[in-house]
Amino acid sequence: MNTIRCSNTLRDMMSEHKRHGRSVGFVPTMGFLHKGHLSLMKRAKAHCDHLVVSIYVNPLQFGAGEDLDRYPSDPEGDAEKCESAGVDTLFCPKTLFADSHATTVSVAGLTAGLCGASRPGHFDGLATVVARLFGIVQPDIAVFGEKDFQQLAVIRRMTKDLGMAINIMGAPLIRDTDGLALSSRNTNLDPLEHQRALSLHQALQFIQTHPSPSAKERIQAGMALLQADRVDYLQIVNPVSLQPIQQIDGPARVLVAAWIGNTRLIDNMAI
Amino acid sequence: MNTIRCSNTLRDMMSEHKRHGRSVGFVPTMGFLHKGHLSLMKRAKAHCDHLVVSIYVNPLQFGAGEDLDRYPSDPEGDAEKCESAGVDTLFCPKTLFADSHATTVSVAGLTAGLCGASRPGHFDGLATVVARLFGIVQPDIAVFGEKDFQQLAVIRRMTKDLGMAINIMGAPLIRDTDGLALSSRNTNLDPLEHQRALSLHQALQFIQTHPSPSAKERIQAGMALLQADRVDYLQIVNPVSLQPIQQIDGPARVLVAAWIGNTRLIDNMAI
Repeated sequence: MNTIRCSNTLRDMMSEHKRHGRSVGFVPTMGFLHKGHLSLMKRAKAHCDHLVVSIYVNPLQFGAGEDLDRYPSDPEGDAEKCESAGVDTLFCPKTLFADSHATTVSVAGLTAGLCGASRPGHFDGLATVVARLFGIVQPDIAVFGEKDFQQLAVIRRMTKDLGMAINIMGAPLIRDTDGLALSSRNTNLDPLEHQRALSLHQALQFIQTHPSPSAKERIQAGMALLQADRVDYLQIVNPVSLQPIQQIDGPARVLVAAWIGNTRLIDNMAI
Repeated sequence: MNTIRCSNTLRDMMSEHKRHGRSVGFVPTMGFLHKGHLSLMKRAKAHCDHLVVSIYVNPLQFGAGEDLDRYPSDPEGDAEKCESAGVDTLFCPKTLFADSHATTVSVAGLTAGLCGASRPGHFDGLATVVARLFGIVQPDIAVFGEKDFQQLAVIRRMTKDLGMAINIMGAPLIRDTDGLALSSRNTNLDPLEHQRALSLHQALQFIQTHPSPSAKERIQAGMALLQADRVDYLQIVNPVSLQPIQQIDGPARVLVAAWIGNTRLIDNMAI
């Protein structure tokens, strides 16, 4: 496994692979890798000749007062996991943005609700860093987890809108044996918080199997189960437009973002 | 010469060229081609295996009340000129943006003054269409004229910021024998307006050769020569940052945008 820290070096290497007809797969991450990330790498590995994983905690997608400074990290552990997962190139830039950086990529509509409403600027920062990473890595395919369901929709939209020749693949959310959706942020939970965090998954399951066709009724029932300190949202939406729906008479997705102590967790489930 | 109207078809063709190690050159235009455009094509042709020219009048870069509806066009003449210039693929999409298009690319700073100030939204529309065209065409090099000096700076910045493996080349502004900077919009000038339009070039030359180190003095002297109905700006700026300068003690650029009748013309010159 190559480990590369310089964007220009990586871009030149990847251009060379492309010129020789080798397909490039890409999994961008913020590190502190868990089984969820490894499942994305496995998916990507099956669809490319050369697999690139990036580890970069992108400051642009964190708002003021968010957890940028205490985002967990484990560079050595991450490198070992990537090596075992068959990653060909690990990209760990010290920084991705020049001081002179001036470009922002924004996706309207899809980013208005859900995490877009509770984290202003988050999706601009996300779309911008992913566009830049796509420029450097030049992947043929890129894999994103359904754990960040809105993020996946935003990246799909951006990729399509900017005409990029990149196949965006989703991969299912991975849960711990107790049902908690895997997240690097789970490491911030103490044992009691971890216990309360299970209520997110339990509420989603309850909503998923609830007999009522009314989204409002299901949400009310699910909300009563949440043992969170604050709920940013618990919503049932159209899985493509991410617009809230009233009646459940076709494909739907229930999404939640809630705070357990100082940790903001998200989860979602198909209905 | 291939003529392609469908974005997906073009992207697949270009991906195929890239996989076979052939370099792609690109000149995006809005059509009604003149010798300025042909000089860009010549420059690009010398640096690539396969030359793509696009003709698309991008609605996103026109503001309300601007001349989108009366932008000149000559599809047959353009095709002949491209053929003669050795263009390999002519891309003439009917439209470039899906109804569901939601992505905007913005470049801050460089777009604040000059045309950015007099044409709000123009550079967002420009950066967005060029990013999309770059995604579809996947060029190794792209050539833009120095006629649109601010545009060239914005595209360079965007390309760098988004990590794109594209070499952006500038090409000198081309003038008519009487000094008028070539522009598709010149066709809108009647003979008297054409005569008055020459004052742009004359004012720039006067400013260029003026002995004073004071930008203000040179601008005042140049302004007196302009026979325009309205002047959007006449400014001396740093050629990289595009920030106005007071004292001319290094590289500088003088830029003008002015209205002759209903036609807005731009021109610029190195100092």
